[in-house]
Amino acid sequence: MGAVYHNHNSFVSSLDTAGKVITCKAAVAWGPGQPLVIQDVRVAPPQKMEVRLKVLFTSICHTDLSAWKGENEAQRAYPRILGHEAAGIVESVGEGVEDIKKGDHVVPIFQGECGSCMCCKNQKTNLCQKFGVNPLKSVMENDGKTRFSTKDGSPIFHFLNTSTFSEYTVIDSACAVRIDPKAPLEKMTLLSCGVSTGVGAAWNVADVQPGSSVAIFGLGAVGLAVSTESIKTKACSFITNIAWFIPCGEVIESGMEQVAEGARVRGASKIIGVDINPTKFTKGKAVGITDFINPKDLEVPVHEKIVAITEGGVDCSFECAGNLEVLREAFLSTHMGWGLTVLLGIHPSPKLLPLHPMELFDGRQIVGSVFGGYKGKTQLPKLAQKCMCGTLNLDEFITHELPFHKINEAFQLLVDGKSLRCLLHL
Amino acid sequence: MGAVYHNHNSFVSSLDTAGKVITCKAAVAWGPGQPLVIQDVRVAPPQKMEVRLKVLFTSICHTDLSAWKGENEAQRAYPRILGHEAAGIVESVGEGVEDIKKGDHVVPIFQGECGSCMCCKNQKTNLCQKFGVNPLKSVMENDGKTRFSTKDGSPIFHFLNTSTFSEYTVIDSACAVRIDPKAPLEKMTLLSCGVSTGVGAAWNVADVQPGSSVAIFGLGAVGLAVSTESIKTKACSFITNIAWFIPCGEVIESGMEQVAEGARVRGASKIIGVDINPTKFTKGKAVGITDFINPKDLEVPVHEKIVAITEGGVDCSFECAGNLEVLREAFLSTHMGWGLTVLLGIHPSPKLLPLHPMELFDGRQIVGSVFGGYKGKTQLPKLAQKCMCGTLNLDEFITHELPFHKINEAFQLLVDGKSLRCLLHL
Repeated sequence: MGAVYHNHNSFVSSLDTAGKVITCKAAVAWGPGQPLVIQDVRVAPPQKMEVRLKVLFTSICHTDLSAWKGENEAQRAYPRILGHEAAGIVESVGEGVEDIKKGDHVVPIFQGECGSCMCCKNQKTNLCQKFGVNPLKSVMENDGKTRFSTKDGSPIFHFLNTSTFSEYTVIDSACAVRIDPKAPLEKMTLLSCGVSTGVGAAWNVADVQPGSSVAIFGLGAVGLAVSTESIKTKACSFITNIAWFIPCGEVIESGMEQVAEGARVRGASKIIGVDINPTKFTKGKAVGITDFINPKDLEVPVHEKIVAITEGGVDCSFECAGNLEVLREAFLSTHMGWGLTVLLGIHPSPKLLPLHPMELFDGRQIVGSVFGGYKGKTQLPKLAQKCMCGTLNLDEFITHELPFHKINEAFQLLVDGKSLRCLLHL
Repeated sequence: MGAVYHNHNSFVSSLDTAGKVITCKAAVAWGPGQPLVIQDVRVAPPQKMEVRLKVLFTSICHTDLSAWKGENEAQRAYPRILGHEAAGIVESVGEGVEDIKKGDHVVPIFQGECGSCMCCKNQKTNLCQKFGVNPLKSVMENDGKTRFSTKDGSPIFHFLNTSTFSEYTVIDSACAVRIDPKAPLEKMTLLSCGVSTGVGAAWNVADVQPGSSVAIFGLGAVGLAVSTESIKTKACSFITNIAWFIPCGEVIESGMEQVAEGARVRGASKIIGVDINPTKFTKGKAVGITDFINPKDLEVPVHEKIVAITEGGVDCSFECAGNLEVLREAFLSTHMGWGLTVLLGIHPSPKLLPLHPMELFDGRQIVGSVFGGYKGKTQLPKLAQKCMCGTLNLDEFITHELPFHKINEAFQLLVDGKSLRCLLHL
């Protein structure tokens, strides 16, 4: 990878762009579901505590898909540059940035780490009160303005603190993770979202132990069947302000495969994949899934089957479907007393948790996992090391590669369920 | 206490009752809400893995009150001997009991510890799959029969593995905790339920840290306002079998005071009591409550007030009210990222948790606490030591004392909200 490193670095160094507006290509979303338009955009220099990044690789996850579709009205900030999984090299930094410099290899993260808020200072959480996940945020924190604009100066909005579908992007330094320049940048793209989220859920949130049993409830058509109709149904009277969850896209996206890889590395003895899409089962074997359950093949609820084959239930389950019925099955599939259900799926319906308070007295717990519990700037560099030394195997996750200008093809691959990740080369 | 010890022991020793039926006085519940009848009952000898106990002290908690009222049809097993907080001396033991012998000082526990089930063998839980809390259970595990009968031989049913409103009772050895004979038996009664449940919630479940902040949502009239009407409302369609929670009495009973004592001992710097009954506030000061909030005095929701006075929320909150609105306030009163809400209140309504799945992504957690997380037989002897050396102060919890035959007066004191615990001397 040394050659790639030197190539990239010399490319960035050869340009004298610091402090100037850069004109480059970006894929711009102009309206819900419309094909992205590859066009020239102007990228302003980074302001105080910001970083301008030359994006070399980016990929697409379901969150981009959801935002692109503009399924929720509140998400509709157009024109907008989507994208949040990427890797690149720093072109220049703004005032006050001390931990990152020109030429550094960087992975952008949608869940930032400012380092100074109450959450960042607490070891029990990876949330950040300043740069947390907010799909509604479309401007920079510093001045409430965009760094992108069209040739005639009209603003182009940001997305998820990252906006990586562009040859250059400006991000807050709190959302820029410096990684070892020897790490393969194309694979590091996966650390921006999917792999960190899935592996971290198994390692940091569930703390999967050697010999333990896990069940992973995948996406499949059941999960996708959450209709927009349900969003319009009346929320529980207890929740008077429901605005916060309606705009959420699938910002916390990870699937069965990433979680399974995390569980495999930790030495789980039984990794049960649950999905109604049988093609998932073939792929799953490569990342360590030992047992498959297709709910369509059963005459009993999934949790009864899992309880029967695991002496009372798994130690932990992962809900990646964003479906309330699946959530309840995942919860009941764990062992009474110590079972833990980790929530990764996004639930756009305003319906409440399908659990009764008294069920918590059976000792089962349920927790949400954002970005795999990783404090990005502090902990991702170590995760990158684990990838470099082969502890974590990323080979199975990039199923397709395309040049950047074919981004609409890459979207279609994801829509059709054909790709896990399609890497775009800029 | 030495004198008391010798008195008790010589009393038990002087009787040659092992293997024989004992006729003694008990307070028998004959129907919902009817005054208990002090009458002669026959107590059969303990069978395999059972213990017959001479009860010296017993007290009444809200669970007894709920069962006495027979609010739920499924609870109505009459005649029945209620009571589950007590302390006494072993009169004889059945076949196979090796850890307890005649003359031992024992505290009965409604949440047993068989030592051999999957849960008992796991350090993460104190649940027991064989002798867990089950308000419907009214016979012995061993043979499905009662050990109590009337003079003419009709069965009298058991309650919560304990049935302590009797001069003698038979319990499973899994529900008998042997404690130091030097411990003051009358106070050890509190370890059977209320104090273990409350203190353990703070120590074992929430793991309250020095300098941390806690909020305790007490009972008050809001909690009591959960009407039986709500029990009849339709449960969520997800929960097809709701029978399990309708029969639950308030089997996990503990109040603000017991939790506060636990938090105080751990060095919490801010202990906020929330209740609409202002008389609670005076009592609460004695057990370390530093701030009081009466929701009736506020123009904003309680959680907004708590967030304002605690830099974003408390580290943990305790819901002792059994009310869904209170539960939601308790949840939102904790700090994002790491806040933990411990559920102690019993929720008889079939309504679901008033939380949306997406709210779990804010990093707040909610867990149920049964018997304070204590594995009774293993851990209560150490808790008794903490009481003996004064680490834990039990003086505030026994507010009244009466002879056993005045048990109906003691019930009335609890109904009227005048007593915290009324100790009955047998």
